[in-house]
Amino acid sequence: MAIKEGLRPGGRSARVQESIHSAVRELLEKQERSTVTVPQIAVRAGVTPSTIYRRWGDLSTLLADVALARMRPDSEPANTGSLRGDIRAWAEQYLDEMSSEPGRTILRDVQCSATPGFCVSIISGQLQIILERYSDSSEMLPSVDRLINMVVAPTVFRILFSAAPLAAGELHQLIDIALHQ
Amino acid sequence: MAIKEGLRPGGRSARVQESIHSAVRELLEKQERSTVTVPQIAVRAGVTPSTIYRRWGDLSTLLADVALARMRPDSEPANTGSLRGDIRAWAEQYLDEMSSEPGRTILRDVQCSATPGFCVSIISGQLQIILERYSDSSEMLPSVDRLINMVVAPTVFRILFSAAPLAAGELHQLIDIALHQ
Repeated sequence: MAIKEGLRPGGRSARVQESIHSAVRELLEKQERSTVTVPQIAVRAGVTPSTIYRRWGDLSTLLADVALARMRPDSEPANTGSLRGDIRAWAEQYLDEMSSEPGRTILRDVQCSATPGFCVSIISGQLQIILERYSDSSEMLPSVDRLINMVVAPTVFRILFSAAPLAAGELHQLIDIALHQ
Repeated sequence: MAIKEGLRPGGRSARVQESIHSAVRELLEKQERSTVTVPQIAVRAGVTPSTIYRRWGDLSTLLADVALARMRPDSEPANTGSLRGDIRAWAEQYLDEMSSEPGRTILRDVQCSATPGFCVSIISGQLQIILERYSDSSEMLPSVDRLINMVVAPTVFRILFSAAPLAAGELHQLIDIALHQ
């Protein structure tokens, strides 16, 4: 089942969705995620379980939807005045957020969603904003894909599969390699 | 609970483990993984559920253990006569295997294991074998970490999070960047 996007803010449907999302977030703060159930979420959100099943199909799709919503950034990437500075600031914040316990949970849930590619779209959007700031400069700009492969991928891979996340020095080195072509 | 390693091959314990691993592999071929249960595995393997619980603690640890065992390569990386050739051959095979449906399942299960870092140890071992072949050459050798960050990480990240895995051309380009320093 596809993740539902583009609901009009403030509509009845958006309010129901927000109350269900809040219920999930609150429950996940209190208890192990493997113990969270649809009926529990429904009670807390003041809806019937069938409202949840109708909209999301199953629990893992709902959890993935909540994870994607939390992944969506609150603001534009910081503008430090240089391409390298902007990429560093963005990547440091991303590493920081994703290596936290809630960040790891988001990464796992997103993979189980019907649209894991949506996570890359969000990241691409942020990186594109940064690159557009410097589109008039004489600097050779890397492609978004290059930044994803060389900066985002090692950040996420190390969080999910390695004993330790990337160190700041390693992250900076990868950014330097991605920017030099 | 830690993944059990280093059991003596052929021992009683190893035979029990192998029959439980086989039972899991067979069940996963026949049915959705979310429907596989410990009692089912026990019946198929001819053991009691408590044998499984005693050894692995829970189902997700057992599934992760089976996934790690499948990840362990059958043989040394191919020796093509050049560093670039060996890395390419290894990385192409890795991309190919991991982007298959069983490969994706392995990647997901390993993340849920108590020792996801073990997956990086296996990969590091393979890359180390390749690098050692060329340790006497005048070539500047990349570190294993550099190869993991710049070749393995984008391979895995794109499989898990993107709409499409790396194309062969992209993979070759990343290898070239990792080898030039």
